[in-house]
Amino acid sequence: MGFAPADLTEDRFLGGRLTLIQPRDGYRAGVDPVFLAAAVAARAGESVLDLGCGVGAATLCLGARVAGLTLVGVERQEAYADLARMNAFDNDIDMDVFSADLTDLPRELRDESFDHVIMNPPYHLRERSTTSADTGRADALFEDTPLAAWIDAATKRLKPRGHLTMIQKAERLPEILNGMDERLGSVLVKPLSPREGRAAVLVLVQARKGGRGAFRLAAPLVLHAGDEHSGDRESYRPEVSAILREGAHLPLW
Amino acid sequence: MGFAPADLTEDRFLGGRLTLIQPRDGYRAGVDPVFLAAAVAARAGESVLDLGCGVGAATLCLGARVAGLTLVGVERQEAYADLARMNAFDNDIDMDVFSADLTDLPRELRDESFDHVIMNPPYHLRERSTTSADTGRADALFEDTPLAAWIDAATKRLKPRGHLTMIQKAERLPEILNGMDERLGSVLVKPLSPREGRAAVLVLVQARKGGRGAFRLAAPLVLHAGDEHSGDRESYRPEVSAILREGAHLPLW
Repeated sequence: MGFAPADLTEDRFLGGRLTLIQPRDGYRAGVDPVFLAAAVAARAGESVLDLGCGVGAATLCLGARVAGLTLVGVERQEAYADLARMNAFDNDIDMDVFSADLTDLPRELRDESFDHVIMNPPYHLRERSTTSADTGRADALFEDTPLAAWIDAATKRLKPRGHLTMIQKAERLPEILNGMDERLGSVLVKPLSPREGRAAVLVLVQARKGGRGAFRLAAPLVLHAGDEHSGDRESYRPEVSAILREGAHLPLW
Repeated sequence: MGFAPADLTEDRFLGGRLTLIQPRDGYRAGVDPVFLAAAVAARAGESVLDLGCGVGAATLCLGARVAGLTLVGVERQEAYADLARMNAFDNDIDMDVFSADLTDLPRELRDESFDHVIMNPPYHLRERSTTSADTGRADALFEDTPLAAWIDAATKRLKPRGHLTMIQKAERLPEILNGMDERLGSVLVKPLSPREGRAAVLVLVQARKGGRGAFRLAAPLVLHAGDEHSGDRESYRPEVSAILREGAHLPLW
């Protein structure tokens, strides 16, 4: 399906350094892809593959922070892939976008390997979900591809010593860790919690292909200052604002 | 092997509420079993099984905090089991101690089920270790029984809705989560980190037999105040001192 102009909004990211066109009512990129991009320690000359790139939020945030990257996205939904191509063009960032299912990548991609694979898989299993009127939103929110398949597809596309970085609901951390096999190591988990002393709502998980390091559980990134959620974006703590408004890097360790 | 009196020390726990005799040079109970006991929300009338109880530190700390529990320990090493029996007697706490391997429990125990199973498995895999002069220390520090076998033995001994609580090095969290099967749910991880903003060194992991709740990653318990490790026990934060010196409960959630 495509989107009519009236169905689209134009939203500013990274304090306006990036403008993304996305569906008004479909799946909408929020802060999660921004945190994902911030966690990737990519350097000029390296290549990045974004599995399930949606409208390109994570990849374009990364491209806005680090110049000289080769950026490739894969998105199953043609309408979202089209928006990703448009957003890359409008923001003057080079990004190749393939419309494909990550479990059935085109030969052209299967012949490639990358320094970084990033992904922000849907947060809910389809069986848990109620059906959604908007197919795009449903596909983006409710996966039918298990996390293990996402991780396997990512692992296959990584160069030796390459890094996988993903963001996901904290409650699915066991699924993520169980989905990683001996090809991945040096696994690092960075919890994201809304307030000091509160449980993690999201986890950033990074692993290295062929890594030999022990598993590490980093200190949480606490998003908001104070004890109560004001709903006011300005309650973000300074280092979090730097990530969201200025495109700062988020060192996981 | 047994211990000669000269090989033993008498150490105070919970601010002196508990005195434990343990080997001078063998495996020595530190703060870890105290945190383990603190994390168990046991109530009078409930039963507790301690797998690999050593000299009984965790179980006796729990017994000192909560009266009216049925306490049972299993310890593979006879010399440590003897010390656990002696420590229970000297501290006037009822505890049955079986000398057995957790993978081959006596019929008497296999016929029993418990409201709580607690364990503090050895932290290192034997193959990682250099051989130790002290067999007891080696057995206590370097396991040859995989964590999955510990978890399976614990799960079998739990009553329906019963709780497994364990403490282990944070780096082995993936092994722990992978070792849990569909019999366990409502898994909760509480990281223990030495300082604010530092990675977790230990994790308390709790799971419920037949639990249906989602996985939860709680906020870390930060052990020490300040930014540098002074090596001074008084640097423990107040809620941590309350656990270690006054036998306070540690709510995981």
